[in-house]
Amino acid sequence: MESQRDEEAQQPLIDHDHQSTVSTESAPLQRSAINSTSQVALVGAKVCPIESLDYEIIENDFFKQDWRRGETVEIFKYIFMKWTLCFLVGVMGGLVGFFINLAVENIAGTKFVITSNMMLERKFMYAFGSFAAFNLGLTLFSAIITAFISPAAAGSGIPEVKAYLNGVDAPGIFSVRTLVVKIIGNISAVSASLYVGKAGPMVHTVSCIAALLSQGGSKKYHLTWRWLRFFKNDRDRRDLITCGSAAGLAAAFRAPVGGVLFALEEMASWWRSALLWRTFFTTAVVAVILRAFIDVCNSDKCGLFGKGGLIMFDVTSTNTSYHVADVPAVLLLGVVGGLLGSLYNSLLDKTLRVYNYINNKGRAHKIILACTICALTTILLFGLPWVSKCKPCPVDASEACPTIGRSGNYKKYQCLPGHYNDLASLFFNTNDDAIRNLFSKDTDTEFQPTSLLIFFVTNYFLGILSYGIVAPTGLFVPIIVTGASYGRFIGRLSGSRTSLNHGLFAVLGAASFLGGSMRMTVSLCVVLLEITNNLLLLPLVMVVLLVSKTVADMFNNNIYDIIMKLKGFPYLEAHAEPYMRQLTVGDVVKGPLQSFSGIEQVRNIVHVLTTTSHNGFPVIDGPPFSDSRAWFGLILREHILVLLRKKVFLHVPQPTGTGAFEQLSSDDFAKRGSGKADKIEDIEITEEEMEMFIDLHPFTNASPYTAGETMSLAKALMMFREAGLRHLLVVPKDSGRPPVVGILTRHDFMPEHVLGMYPHLENSRWKKLRLHLPKFV
Amino acid sequence: MESQRDEEAQQPLIDHDHQSTVSTESAPLQRSAINSTSQVALVGAKVCPIESLDYEIIENDFFKQDWRRGETVEIFKYIFMKWTLCFLVGVMGGLVGFFINLAVENIAGTKFVITSNMMLERKFMYAFGSFAAFNLGLTLFSAIITAFISPAAAGSGIPEVKAYLNGVDAPGIFSVRTLVVKIIGNISAVSASLYVGKAGPMVHTVSCIAALLSQGGSKKYHLTWRWLRFFKNDRDRRDLITCGSAAGLAAAFRAPVGGVLFALEEMASWWRSALLWRTFFTTAVVAVILRAFIDVCNSDKCGLFGKGGLIMFDVTSTNTSYHVADVPAVLLLGVVGGLLGSLYNSLLDKTLRVYNYINNKGRAHKIILACTICALTTILLFGLPWVSKCKPCPVDASEACPTIGRSGNYKKYQCLPGHYNDLASLFFNTNDDAIRNLFSKDTDTEFQPTSLLIFFVTNYFLGILSYGIVAPTGLFVPIIVTGASYGRFIGRLSGSRTSLNHGLFAVLGAASFLGGSMRMTVSLCVVLLEITNNLLLLPLVMVVLLVSKTVADMFNNNIYDIIMKLKGFPYLEAHAEPYMRQLTVGDVVKGPLQSFSGIEQVRNIVHVLTTTSHNGFPVIDGPPFSDSRAWFGLILREHILVLLRKKVFLHVPQPTGTGAFEQLSSDDFAKRGSGKADKIEDIEITEEEMEMFIDLHPFTNASPYTAGETMSLAKALMMFREAGLRHLLVVPKDSGRPPVVGILTRHDFMPEHVLGMYPHLENSRWKKLRLHLPKFV
Repeated sequence: MESQRDEEAQQPLIDHDHQSTVSTESAPLQRSAINSTSQVALVGAKVCPIESLDYEIIENDFFKQDWRRGETVEIFKYIFMKWTLCFLVGVMGGLVGFFINLAVENIAGTKFVITSNMMLERKFMYAFGSFAAFNLGLTLFSAIITAFISPAAAGSGIPEVKAYLNGVDAPGIFSVRTLVVKIIGNISAVSASLYVGKAGPMVHTVSCIAALLSQGGSKKYHLTWRWLRFFKNDRDRRDLITCGSAAGLAAAFRAPVGGVLFALEEMASWWRSALLWRTFFTTAVVAVILRAFIDVCNSDKCGLFGKGGLIMFDVTSTNTSYHVADVPAVLLLGVVGGLLGSLYNSLLDKTLRVYNYINNKGRAHKIILACTICALTTILLFGLPWVSKCKPCPVDASEACPTIGRSGNYKKYQCLPGHYNDLASLFFNTNDDAIRNLFSKDTDTEFQPTSLLIFFVTNYFLGILSYGIVAPTGLFVPIIVTGASYGRFIGRLSGSRTSLNHGLFAVLGAASFLGGSMRMTVSLCVVLLEITNNLLLLPLVMVVLLVSKTVADMFNNNIYDIIMKLKGFPYLEAHAEPYMRQLTVGDVVKGPLQSFSGIEQVRNIVHVLTTTSHNGFPVIDGPPFSDSRAWFGLILREHILVLLRKKVFLHVPQPTGTGAFEQLSSDDFAKRGSGKADKIEDIEITEEEMEMFIDLHPFTNASPYTAGETMSLAKALMMFREAGLRHLLVVPKDSGRPPVVGILTRHDFMPEHVLGMYPHLENSRWKKLRLHLPKFV
Repeated sequence: MESQRDEEAQQPLIDHDHQSTVSTESAPLQRSAINSTSQVALVGAKVCPIESLDYEIIENDFFKQDWRRGETVEIFKYIFMKWTLCFLVGVMGGLVGFFINLAVENIAGTKFVITSNMMLERKFMYAFGSFAAFNLGLTLFSAIITAFISPAAAGSGIPEVKAYLNGVDAPGIFSVRTLVVKIIGNISAVSASLYVGKAGPMVHTVSCIAALLSQGGSKKYHLTWRWLRFFKNDRDRRDLITCGSAAGLAAAFRAPVGGVLFALEEMASWWRSALLWRTFFTTAVVAVILRAFIDVCNSDKCGLFGKGGLIMFDVTSTNTSYHVADVPAVLLLGVVGGLLGSLYNSLLDKTLRVYNYINNKGRAHKIILACTICALTTILLFGLPWVSKCKPCPVDASEACPTIGRSGNYKKYQCLPGHYNDLASLFFNTNDDAIRNLFSKDTDTEFQPTSLLIFFVTNYFLGILSYGIVAPTGLFVPIIVTGASYGRFIGRLSGSRTSLNHGLFAVLGAASFLGGSMRMTVSLCVVLLEITNNLLLLPLVMVVLLVSKTVADMFNNNIYDIIMKLKGFPYLEAHAEPYMRQLTVGDVVKGPLQSFSGIEQVRNIVHVLTTTSHNGFPVIDGPPFSDSRAWFGLILREHILVLLRKKVFLHVPQPTGTGAFEQLSSDDFAKRGSGKADKIEDIEITEEEMEMFIDLHPFTNASPYTAGETMSLAKALMMFREAGLRHLLVVPKDSGRPPVVGILTRHDFMPEHVLGMYPHLENSRWKKLRLHLPKFV
């Protein structure tokens, strides 16, 4: 065995010499796949072409000229606008966060007040009827607007934003209609007592606002602003959307520092110091705005929006000292959280695949599915509390028992006066209130272990079943509430072996489950500290998160990566697969290469653009413009389209000089909104113009990134990801060959694609060795 | 004026056509500098060659073979060791942090107890005498060990670590002697009541521990461990040192999350998600260790180490609500902090230049300078409290007045019973206690405005004067204490116009001054929250930091960048200067290029290594090994030296195959500790061997990063920095030229170097336009 392995190691995985001699005849034997493995979404109805974004600075003569003409005042305008936009994103983020919470608290509050009043009068069937009617109506509304107006608004939105920041432009995720549906749909879905959260949708919402601002508003709805023209490029848009995602989380949890870290740890693929500062500014604005509104609401001007309005679980207690004896319980929580979290991810994956099958059958099926889940949830929420026995109110309760109002720890439900139903206190409430009840201190004996267990199991599965329905649904809150319930359950079981109070156990349980399914560390830690307002918890939360993440990482990926994979986004990981070290870029690059001459005939250009779908073309100069054939740079399809549309043509093939610049302004090259692009078919060119020429030189990026053909695929992947590239030119190492061997795009780095080309790697030791190792390395 | 500008803009900055035709004859006219502008330190006695680090993965056949032979168990060992090392760094960080605090509290405590007892007996001259003797003795000790044993231990150490993480290997910063001197010297300097901090040295200390662990201990002191061999490369070392710097700050302030953010925001030049997780783990260990020791000390087992042991200023107060009326005061603090901070940086810069002049005269001068500063400090500390009038103790004081013990808010000093001296409460204390007094709540009337003003002015200038002496000195604590004093002063002046308490003003003042001189945002914010244990301050601290950083950024750089510049570290900024967009890599690359053939004669290799100081050489194949001349890759000097030392020679020039691998193990290529490297002069080669050959192919990195010669310098800089490169191959765009044009190293990107080559850029609009703009963009 040992010797066999050694032999295997001695043989190269891919015999380059051999391959290069036979590749011309028998290439298909080795390379079997077409390059689209990752373009087909498993989840999400339509199979759309997913485009990459241009995060690279396109340095062509035109850009340089334009940049240099820019007066100092223009640059100050740009800087001023950059900060103003961040400020606006912060303000809007704060407003949206407040509005969603206000709406949910009032709608769900009204529902619970009406139902509770009927319960008080012991009209149980009426109560159930109205509860069910409310829930179904709201779910139906949410599902219908999502299915008919903007299917892209379904789900959390975090995977889409994360993919965008990685350079993947999924269609329709940043449109005005998505924004509106996301906000209204999420309010209805959450108010319908579905086990869905509002944090994820809020991240998407604020990112969407940032994207709309940066693309200069929406032309369709005549909301445009000329000053925003500076930001019509993918780089600035990406920066602003990063700020938006941070602001979204900050608004959801009132956690400004947590929001920054969330954007840094989970969302952004590309980061720099200046961005940290700007993100921080944005979330600071969110914090200030939220605080101002809460001040307003504290004087009872917001209807049913009370203390429950924004998650802020105050678990400050004098008893936060902990001892070595508490460590085993904390470690246990971490391990359990890791196991449950990875199981959760895997079940969610399976569920989404099944749902996809149903959803693909049409809108009616989607809506029926949503209503089924809603009905199931309603029945469980209303029915399960009857299982629990009524308990007499504790004598020393710190608040009214049983609770009269909408929120509180001791729900009366069907119980007699002086008694409360502990399961109803958890079930018959908004999720925010359930979390608050679970996190509350000095209530160690309030919840019976069986109630906690029932609550946990129900939540765990309802959370999995609810995410995939056709409505804007988040994951954070269901995960927190589920984690808190088993945390408290374990606390109850530990009994006197630990001195930690059960509210603390609930917080740690939430931490462990979050760590197990979302796999963030620092950001979750800070978010939890900010929402519980207790810094002394820090070391315990850190330990729990580290343990649960480590355990869970052994089994599968984090939940957003799983969803992104299901959606078919070609996400570039930050690490390379081990077998990629054994392949060179020459092994994956394919011909024939389409290229242009520096001065090219319009007919050729139109022909190539019509017959291929490439987005970047190398420009190669030959005599008489250069001594020998040499690559000049890379030109983007969309820039060529601008030249064709503006008809920057020449009658004779000779360099234009600066004449061409007069015809064009930098606005012509501005990147349009997500998913919108010119098409070659829409440009009319006369037969006479077809015979003319275009000088591509001034519009060609003369500084493209290049890789020698023997660079390992792993290293090229790192460069591609670190520099945020869309195209990577592969150049030969020797002279006497065409100056460009090929172009790599993000699809060429996808493991599915590479393994499709070299299926034997699938079974090689390098594949097996993986074992999720890269994550630990 | 306007038209002239336009004309200027139309003309290219550098006329490439013109230049390329004349460059062969008249190059010196355009390019005037030698490439060493940034290698000469202004501060720091010896002018040492500063080497770059290899953060790039060297992918040669030998590495690939070695990696593939690695069994799964080896990989698990590697992962296990990676986490074990982080754990060890955390443990050692916690221990060092605790030990330094314990020592300072006990030494300084003893000093203050003895002096105070004499004061109580009204023996003022004796008190002064013993105070001065203590201080001078401790300063002398610190200065002598620093000057004679390890000059590299002087100062904060943060700039050195930051430069290391950027890829600059300053000599001697990570040696055992530096570690020892840093710890002991810092304890003495801080105990001597000098206005120096312990946070910076702690960051350096723990980074140093991390570096020593990763280089497998110290051979010199026979402290080595075989398992550590995995980490003998610059990449793993860098990762561990990043964890170390985070652990250092976490230990200094008991701020684990702040430590992580500090490493991310200020220290690291290169970051990835996995590192965030590991850093977080390290600081969590630090937090747990510190907590354990504090539990031990709470039962009075640590001598004079009391509550003051570790900075943990509990300013939790019920009155942390704030209103719109408080905003002007907060903004004022931010602006003042920004102005004072940038002035501080500029004065420190000037002071260090003067000190450098003195220090260069020899060790005696250095030590005399240190003693002078100590004498000045002692006189001010002892003398200034006499200026202040004694105040009667407040009736409702929450603690004993006047203070009997060592720490407390109401120092008796020379006053009569029942009275206290407010200036002595600030001056005649450790800095930590002064901060605690300033941050304390419910003491709004304790300090008179004049006392606060005197304290602020003294601190401001003593802080500037003390940093540059020959001792391990930090910047954090002096800046916090200075900031807190003017914060409280402004609070006192605001009077009834704001409802914020003065302790809060002190915290915000500290934030503003930190923001103004260190220019961090998120990390400082979190550190301040963690040390004050009050999350409700968050929005105010955020606003203050943002304002002060913005104001200060208009004037100069952050303090660490200034010190790095003075020390001559070729630090690669994350942004490019505007004029770099107008230059191509071809404009800065220089010939003649030294290169090797794939199979090269030993004599040639030895000749080139002896006559040049380059660290990387392109390997270029020609016939018969390749059809035409082609570059094969890049080989490092240190790898060639290994081959020479191991005498991997061939009698005839033919490829070796795998035979060469038998002679070598990967340990041979292990990177040695900082500053240590083989020298060509130390390798003895016989005349017969000189005639032999070496096959360089298996040891050549066949995946070097390349740039086309027309890539703009700005873009190449981004690539260089983002990928953490040491060498960048410049390749021609056309065939018919040598396959490699030149090699770029970090020195080629230094603004001083580029401006030295093209002096006219200095006066061009592009230089002036700078205006610190890149920081805002």
